[in-house]
Amino acid sequence: MCQLLAMNCNVPTDIVFSFTGFATRSCEHADGFGIAFFEGRGVRCFVDAQRAADSPIAELVKRYPIRSTNVIAHIRKATVGRVALENTHPFIRELWGRYWVFAHNGNLTDYRPQLHAGFQPVGDTDSERAFCWLMQELAKQHARVPRPLELAETLAELLPAVTAHGNFNFTLSNGEALWAHCSTHLHYIARRHPFSTARLQDEDMRINFAQHTTAGDRVAVIATEPLTADETWTAFSPGELKVFVDGAPLV
Amino acid sequence: MCQLLAMNCNVPTDIVFSFTGFATRSCEHADGFGIAFFEGRGVRCFVDAQRAADSPIAELVKRYPIRSTNVIAHIRKATVGRVALENTHPFIRELWGRYWVFAHNGNLTDYRPQLHAGFQPVGDTDSERAFCWLMQELAKQHARVPRPLELAETLAELLPAVTAHGNFNFTLSNGEALWAHCSTHLHYIARRHPFSTARLQDEDMRINFAQHTTAGDRVAVIATEPLTADETWTAFSPGELKVFVDGAPLV
Repeated sequence: MCQLLAMNCNVPTDIVFSFTGFATRSCEHADGFGIAFFEGRGVRCFVDAQRAADSPIAELVKRYPIRSTNVIAHIRKATVGRVALENTHPFIRELWGRYWVFAHNGNLTDYRPQLHAGFQPVGDTDSERAFCWLMQELAKQHARVPRPLELAETLAELLPAVTAHGNFNFTLSNGEALWAHCSTHLHYIARRHPFSTARLQDEDMRINFAQHTTAGDRVAVIATEPLTADETWTAFSPGELKVFVDGAPLV
Repeated sequence: MCQLLAMNCNVPTDIVFSFTGFATRSCEHADGFGIAFFEGRGVRCFVDAQRAADSPIAELVKRYPIRSTNVIAHIRKATVGRVALENTHPFIRELWGRYWVFAHNGNLTDYRPQLHAGFQPVGDTDSERAFCWLMQELAKQHARVPRPLELAETLAELLPAVTAHGNFNFTLSNGEALWAHCSTHLHYIARRHPFSTARLQDEDMRINFAQHTTAGDRVAVIATEPLTADETWTAFSPGELKVFVDGAPLV
């Protein structure tokens, strides 16, 4: 199975700590990784068809603190679709003059949606098909970027057509908000003042967030499994869709 | 003015040598750089809003030999549009289930094409507007990816509507072919057996291509200005559009 990692913050924050723990897990998830950083409306996406643990690109991401308010990362264990760059998450499309970044964990069986409009998959994964279908249907329902909760409502209406085919844990962002849906496994933590220390579950690495933040900072991290050992992560319920804006879930 | 660099080959080739010379020029072109590598149908794009000469991402590209048959790179001197990641070339869109990568050099004045379909600019450059308009119009004229020369014919019909607004030197690739258009400055070289040595114009760096190639290799490099001092580059004529496939221009 693949693993998801995402971050949504109110001030540009680097993800080096979380990504380091996440990349360690790529020994079992050896079929590529990707990470996309929004910077304003722009997006920077690093992908590699080799595992993050060996990738010079993952090394760069660990060493070069890119500050972003919305990040989506993925490590892949191929199930549907060959190991190839075009099958590596996250996927990106433009809609309403914004980039949309998407990563998926889970398998969709016999999933062949009608893709009759401007979003066609380049690779051959179920994930990219589902993303293209969501973009196509969202484009039909809204004339421009809707507010985050409105988009969540539309997504909630669309999701049953996808989840009927299997597990659809995903993260989606347009650089303003981050949507996360859980079929089976997804956790989040919304860190805010007072910040404390945390220790990675997967590596001997500890951070004191208080040294890297100011009192107003809010940082939400979403991951398939909790990344730190000494913090309380919240599990999503199966079927739950959450929207994160400025480092906190919208209610 | 910005500078363009592109490569089209018949076997995956690394662009480290050419990119090193090209990146040196970024001292005068300090407003960002980008480089996109096709690997099969997939594409890997590195962008940075700082100049290539200082960028850790450019350092990675120089040190990590990514092999690709189609590469498009750009260093930016901002004229239209702020210095921001979303204004950094190359731009990427999906059409007919393929990624299309585009970079532009030149200025388009009062250029506001009707963008009424599925391709909207994310940033605010004339370049991205022109790319979106080309994608929109190509999508109207072909139902699927046309052969390279057919696409060139359609492009040739569309170009006057853009070039009426100014200089439109550009490179475009879908990973199968590379199209290059010259308004003012563009050069190319198509290297093939027997390979010889070359020396960069901008750095004290020399390469013996014979040591890095086999007899069947063909590599075309396209650049705003010739990158090497001791090879014969061919200048495009103003208004000339060329298609490169498997490392050589199609006639």
